[in-house]
Amino acid sequence: MNIFTMVGIFRRILLLRTPLRHLRPHRTLSFAARLSPVDLNAICCSSGQFVASTRKLHVGTDGPKSPPAAGAPERLPFSRVTEEDLAFFRKILPGRTITDPDLVESSNVDWLKSMKGSSEVLLRPQKTEEVSQIIRYCNSRNLAVNPQGGNTGLVGGSVPVYDEIILSTSLMNNILSFDSISGILTCQAGCVLENLSLYLEERDYIMPLDLGAKGSCQIGGNVATNAGGLRLLRYGSLHGTVLGLEVVLADGQVLDCLASLRKDNTGYDLKQLFIGSEGTLGVITAVSILCPRKPKSVNVVFLGCETYEQLLKAFQLCRGMLGEILSAFEFLDSECMRLLNTHLKLPNPISDCPFYIVIETSGSDPKHDAEKLHNFLEEAMASSLVSDGTVATEESKIKALWSMRERVTEALTHDGFTYKYDISLPLEQIYQLVIDMRQHLGGRAKSVVGYGHVGDGNLHLNITSSTKDPALLAAIEPFVYEWTASCRGSISAEHGLGLKKRNYIYYSKPSQAVGLMGNIKAMLDPKGILNPYKTLPDDVK
Amino acid sequence: MNIFTMVGIFRRILLLRTPLRHLRPHRTLSFAARLSPVDLNAICCSSGQFVASTRKLHVGTDGPKSPPAAGAPERLPFSRVTEEDLAFFRKILPGRTITDPDLVESSNVDWLKSMKGSSEVLLRPQKTEEVSQIIRYCNSRNLAVNPQGGNTGLVGGSVPVYDEIILSTSLMNNILSFDSISGILTCQAGCVLENLSLYLEERDYIMPLDLGAKGSCQIGGNVATNAGGLRLLRYGSLHGTVLGLEVVLADGQVLDCLASLRKDNTGYDLKQLFIGSEGTLGVITAVSILCPRKPKSVNVVFLGCETYEQLLKAFQLCRGMLGEILSAFEFLDSECMRLLNTHLKLPNPISDCPFYIVIETSGSDPKHDAEKLHNFLEEAMASSLVSDGTVATEESKIKALWSMRERVTEALTHDGFTYKYDISLPLEQIYQLVIDMRQHLGGRAKSVVGYGHVGDGNLHLNITSSTKDPALLAAIEPFVYEWTASCRGSISAEHGLGLKKRNYIYYSKPSQAVGLMGNIKAMLDPKGILNPYKTLPDDVK
Repeated sequence: MNIFTMVGIFRRILLLRTPLRHLRPHRTLSFAARLSPVDLNAICCSSGQFVASTRKLHVGTDGPKSPPAAGAPERLPFSRVTEEDLAFFRKILPGRTITDPDLVESSNVDWLKSMKGSSEVLLRPQKTEEVSQIIRYCNSRNLAVNPQGGNTGLVGGSVPVYDEIILSTSLMNNILSFDSISGILTCQAGCVLENLSLYLEERDYIMPLDLGAKGSCQIGGNVATNAGGLRLLRYGSLHGTVLGLEVVLADGQVLDCLASLRKDNTGYDLKQLFIGSEGTLGVITAVSILCPRKPKSVNVVFLGCETYEQLLKAFQLCRGMLGEILSAFEFLDSECMRLLNTHLKLPNPISDCPFYIVIETSGSDPKHDAEKLHNFLEEAMASSLVSDGTVATEESKIKALWSMRERVTEALTHDGFTYKYDISLPLEQIYQLVIDMRQHLGGRAKSVVGYGHVGDGNLHLNITSSTKDPALLAAIEPFVYEWTASCRGSISAEHGLGLKKRNYIYYSKPSQAVGLMGNIKAMLDPKGILNPYKTLPDDVK
Repeated sequence: MNIFTMVGIFRRILLLRTPLRHLRPHRTLSFAARLSPVDLNAICCSSGQFVASTRKLHVGTDGPKSPPAAGAPERLPFSRVTEEDLAFFRKILPGRTITDPDLVESSNVDWLKSMKGSSEVLLRPQKTEEVSQIIRYCNSRNLAVNPQGGNTGLVGGSVPVYDEIILSTSLMNNILSFDSISGILTCQAGCVLENLSLYLEERDYIMPLDLGAKGSCQIGGNVATNAGGLRLLRYGSLHGTVLGLEVVLADGQVLDCLASLRKDNTGYDLKQLFIGSEGTLGVITAVSILCPRKPKSVNVVFLGCETYEQLLKAFQLCRGMLGEILSAFEFLDSECMRLLNTHLKLPNPISDCPFYIVIETSGSDPKHDAEKLHNFLEEAMASSLVSDGTVATEESKIKALWSMRERVTEALTHDGFTYKYDISLPLEQIYQLVIDMRQHLGGRAKSVVGYGHVGDGNLHLNITSSTKDPALLAAIEPFVYEWTASCRGSISAEHGLGLKKRNYIYYSKPSQAVGLMGNIKAMLDPKGILNPYKTLPDDVK
């Protein structure tokens, strides 16, 4: 039975039974690979720095030849790596102590190519004990360390600022155990997210998080940055799904909180401290995580709304009628659609509307899921909450629908220099920020667009200009941060603070909280060797 | 259509459409109300203390007349409450500074009546600012404080050990906001869980946790103890669902982390520190929590299994076929059934089996849920995973089925003196502990029974004896803790450590972790005034 026959105005009437893993292969990565240097500059955040010169890397000198760009923090008085230090590292990590500048280079530059450090040493441990020995040594020698996972972060948290030693978890990529009854996976920190997903899918499970960068990002980095991603609406944050961590502390001690239990109330939940601390409190070496069963059915629908209020009502209806099978509720505005049409030649799959929604369902019974979706669509249309829509089933069509949401970032890079903001707000206020920003900027910006994970309250606000425009930036900031703070929003919903955003923390956190963060940092890392210059603002030492 | 007609051997063929809130009204509380003093002694944990004498309460003397029972920690050198102190409290809390011994009495005794403190002052603030003033004053005066919510804890964490001032959150019971689109509730810490549930159900939402003690327990206490309860399998722990906290620190500072956002990656997630810290790091004054939509359909089924292996296979099948609608998977063994039959005259609703399962489903479509349950039951029977079963629909029948699981505790109190253990284990090993314990004890115990939240890996192991039996206790402990530790289990799955279990922490946490806990305590509460003698073991000062 074609369950959508009653919904006459939907132009694509297709049923979908595609495993989730096929839906989003390396999308963001393949996009990044196509960027030109100009594009990469363009997608750099307003607060980012880009160091264009390629420095010659060397050991045991007075440091980098080129200082970081203006606005970067001063180098703290850490020791510099000596030949004796290298000899020690080589003894622990024979063949895995990298000093060839060409090989260290890629670990010095972030994924957006907006940040560039000048580290001369890349260490690639395989075991926790090796990490422990390295960190203990670095702490005793006052050598700064930059822990690095897949280096896919967007706020400059994953690369050195100066000559910090890069400690890569890439070779720590073993799965330690998987319990097929409880769905609890335990693995080393360097396991690539996509590899874990493939491993689990063969066993009828999935990871509770999914990111565009899954082909490169590592689970340790995901946990260290509290990655959000595409499944958060359904499976919640890593604070709930991570059950245990093993962490090497700044003094080299191994903190074993690697319990793989759903319930454990024996004292403070220490692992939580390290989730989202961006490598500044310890180096995560292993992770235990609760994995959901693989859904037997996935559906995707693309809808149009006349107003943001209708979009919100549709979300409310959707939560009630799709209930436990809802797995994504994303949106984009008509300005995003214009950029998709103009720059990427992507045609609108439905009629023009001010707002568009992408809904995904994941469930255990294809027939039930299709019926729920049908009932929701019928009700949403009868209530005039949506004015047009389409459902996809073939893999190519599904990808086409998802790409309308996911290629907005790419379309923006073609529109000009982009000022990017990743904001959390109460759902009711999400789009008001876009409207107010447009009004505030008048005709000064080329485009002001809003899209994002509306189901999670996460707006991606992007503003373009023909060229880099300090006057425009001055009009955007601090307006955007003040607006966000006035609604008790977050100035970094999912990307973290890293180097780029750390000094904006006071817009989202009161000074008591920032002070307590500083106390925690001082307690766990008194010399400040772990990922210096990151997360904490300049005025917290 | 009666969807169970094909499952011929099920003796109760009933469909159920009862709102969840009607299923478990005050069950545990009403049970407690029926206990005699002898019973109350009996359900005291092996490590508990019971001070039978009723002390005369007084102010400004050298302390309690009767010292606590042997084995209790020594009183730390806190100041004693003076008339000047009382004058200060009365100025801040006119009419809410309670010193009448008869009125303070109930706050000195825990819910199990196994612990009794000798506090002479009960403070009942209404506002965060009042809590702040009190704590700041107590810190400056070196007066110890026992934060208290609904006082329903089971490990002696919620009552004073000596003369700590009791700071009750009972009058802090206002709902501050509810967003009917996002489902985010923000309220004061003293809101009673059941009142929040009723408030939400009127708005088509539910709380993400449900406890037997919901008629008394308060959300602040729930968060402070990281309460697990009956919905954890479905909605996860409070570390995932709590979005924000307001906490008064030991120096009186108000830490405002009361964000009501699903995503916020601006720095360390400080609120996590206070979830499960049992009031030892700060006083939670307000909570923001993400609430799920109210299910439109709830089903309950009671099944019998021949072996624990079959029970686990049934769980696995259940997770696959019931998927997103599974909301509880509980078990009891045949020894539990014997005690229910013998002491409470509860008949077995199905034929005798070694193991029994209670499964609950909650979903958004009654027809779909019934079909999923039917398909699961058919498959479970065809695979011989279950040998008998019954489904209930009328409220009385539902309660009867649930009571088979929930009245085991009550049945145990009639069986004799009960040694109680709340253990987390990998699912595969849960029942092996019961078997090994039986073998280890030989004929020394009267009954050795196992039941609990098997879906969460949480075993309630209970051992009875005709009378209190030190030799039996010596046979049980440390055997039970060593066995648990050998499987990397937790010696307190959901009850916390409080006073009773704090010194067993090393069975579940390595010394590094306990040391770090001590450092955190020293950082946040250098004088140790907040809930002293709790959570941390005696050797951590």
